[in-house]
Amino acid sequence: MFTPVYLDHNATTPVHARVLEAMLPYLGARCGNPSSRHEYGRAALKAIERAREQVAVAAGAHPTEVVFASGGSEANNLFLKGVAAASGKPGIVAVSAVEHASVRAPARQLVRQGWRILELPVDDAGRVTPDGVTTALGERPSLWSVMLANNETGVLQDVANIASQVREAVPGAYFHTDAVQAFGKIPMDFRALNQAGVHALSVAAHKVHGPKGAAALIADKRLDLFPLIAGGGQERGLRSGTENVAAIVGFGAAVEWAAAERETEAWRLTELRARLETGLRAMGAAIFGAAAARLPNTVCFAFADLDGETLVGRLDRAGFAIASGAACSSASPGPSHVLVAMGVPDRLARGAVRVSLGIENTARHIDDFLLALERTLSELKELTALHIQRSRSLSHEIAHLS
Amino acid sequence: MFTPVYLDHNATTPVHARVLEAMLPYLGARCGNPSSRHEYGRAALKAIERAREQVAVAAGAHPTEVVFASGGSEANNLFLKGVAAASGKPGIVAVSAVEHASVRAPARQLVRQGWRILELPVDDAGRVTPDGVTTALGERPSLWSVMLANNETGVLQDVANIASQVREAVPGAYFHTDAVQAFGKIPMDFRALNQAGVHALSVAAHKVHGPKGAAALIADKRLDLFPLIAGGGQERGLRSGTENVAAIVGFGAAVEWAAAERETEAWRLTELRARLETGLRAMGAAIFGAAAARLPNTVCFAFADLDGETLVGRLDRAGFAIASGAACSSASPGPSHVLVAMGVPDRLARGAVRVSLGIENTARHIDDFLLALERTLSELKELTALHIQRSRSLSHEIAHLS
Repeated sequence: MFTPVYLDHNATTPVHARVLEAMLPYLGARCGNPSSRHEYGRAALKAIERAREQVAVAAGAHPTEVVFASGGSEANNLFLKGVAAASGKPGIVAVSAVEHASVRAPARQLVRQGWRILELPVDDAGRVTPDGVTTALGERPSLWSVMLANNETGVLQDVANIASQVREAVPGAYFHTDAVQAFGKIPMDFRALNQAGVHALSVAAHKVHGPKGAAALIADKRLDLFPLIAGGGQERGLRSGTENVAAIVGFGAAVEWAAAERETEAWRLTELRARLETGLRAMGAAIFGAAAARLPNTVCFAFADLDGETLVGRLDRAGFAIASGAACSSASPGPSHVLVAMGVPDRLARGAVRVSLGIENTARHIDDFLLALERTLSELKELTALHIQRSRSLSHEIAHLS
Repeated sequence: MFTPVYLDHNATTPVHARVLEAMLPYLGARCGNPSSRHEYGRAALKAIERAREQVAVAAGAHPTEVVFASGGSEANNLFLKGVAAASGKPGIVAVSAVEHASVRAPARQLVRQGWRILELPVDDAGRVTPDGVTTALGERPSLWSVMLANNETGVLQDVANIASQVREAVPGAYFHTDAVQAFGKIPMDFRALNQAGVHALSVAAHKVHGPKGAAALIADKRLDLFPLIAGGGQERGLRSGTENVAAIVGFGAAVEWAAAERETEAWRLTELRARLETGLRAMGAAIFGAAAARLPNTVCFAFADLDGETLVGRLDRAGFAIASGAACSSASPGPSHVLVAMGVPDRLARGAVRVSLGIENTARHIDDFLLALERTLSELKELTALHIQRSRSLSHEIAHLS
């Protein structure tokens, strides 16, 4: 049934067996609501507080800075709308041109409340440009969101550097980073980022072999934030609703494991990625963001004049699960806004596909994938040639008839 | 370890074994993101669409009316803030005096945006009064939220009747019902409610032996609603973020099972409740909302001058998990707003505890509970007597010394 090789870890990751093992008691006998004042409730509360510590340790934060949420999109929305609501009056929100939809869309929602969006441009490797930051600082945005690592290209931003410039130039501004793709893949230290001027970051469990349904906004406690979900007052009043205990426990187990394995795994994935990119380049692929520092697991590439969707479909049938476009989003038919912002020409951007590696992947997967890709490319070229030949012979016939 | 008898099903319920079985593949090999266009993604998408049908059938709705969310609190916030944001201008929001915190708190947040709250009073049995509705209609609130069943007392509201009055008197107003506690316990037909004038209702998986982390706002598609979580455009753009596939699958399985068992189970629970209430009355307990139609599983009661927290703590040690106060909320030290709204005097309201029954409970549990309660009551009375005796002898000594 599910035989395809999974090469789409930036979309989501399989739940690690050890993570599931940690979760199962909380889908069984340990069924309590953490707000309940009996043995079941206390056990559930203890479990989420342990997970809070695990997430805090993995992110270099204090447990009291961890606000659990249902997903990365919620965490990003919580920061942007929560700070905007608490600030009381509209201002300017600065976001990079390559942010995830869950930062771009709430920023656009703020426009209805009188906010103005400033988009920070990126260079052809996908990095926010120093000039763009300087220009933006001149307008003194009070709200900033620049991602740590891009979901499509894996390109890293120098967030600490940008945040420290913001802190110096616009005292009182709030700075957030979407760390959903970076968490568990590169070193992360909220304490250091916070000292540089970052007030909050978003992380999610399901990108690091944890379950879907658990994430966190890690936030400086001095941050004035209105809850997106108000009610019973859970999560220090910042996120009401019965906690998803099992998923939160899984989140804790996943990041503990990821933190222990991260460095070794990063080296292994970097080698696998190099092996993949050597093969891709030999076939004539363009690799996006290759000139920038990137996540060790992500390769976004294209072949000119070859539709990305078609490639994904054919490779799926050949037994390889990869992504076209953003893949986190269900509604983006056009070329990726990330590649457009990088100045990638349309005929190349439309061909973009993404391979994102994870713990189950091996050198054998890479070699098999490259073989399958080569075969697919020649099939598609033959089809195109056949198509051209047919068009020509049809033209010939039509010319003959007329 | 977890031997206490669980009598707190309105706080949360154990995940049914069949529900967990349905979920496990999605915490294992079926790891895809429903937005991904490969076999893993398609399998995940198919799974959530099947669950959407199951939830729709159980609620008497059409699958396209089901908007999945992470919990009941999110669904309630989505309705209130989503409709308020879409309406563009502030108005009046009418909510009953006994709503859950996840309706009361977002309504209060709207006040900052210029909205005014109108609270619908209840009678001493906890039912919204006809006079209260008539008075409120005179002010023409544009937004309404009246719960189907109260989480603390189990008291049912005649939502269809109130909604039809609203539709007649204030055309264009939007009416919502928090059906989180009612769903799976009493018959529910969104189609009929919708025809009466209800535009949306909230339901949650973890109250019906499904997992925490899945819920839905079931909403008339003509409802103009802004997303609380904006981003990738999942759930027809109304709730972005990677879907919690396993929890949603569990939600579907749970409601399918609940719908099949509901009627039989309701009869069984009604009998158990009668057995419990007979015992409680014999001990001199006051039962709140007893004069009203109530959920078959819920009993909220108190003994005068006896602290509810103390009772919950002692019964917990005696092996019975029951709730004091709201139990869905972590931050409510005072007496329950529900009982205050019902005019319950403070010395009784502070003693309120709740027993909420579920599928695992038996007549034996009820009898054992009543025995333990009786024992606890006499211990507490002895303690009080001892305390009074000690106070007296202390007064005597002090009098003697002076």
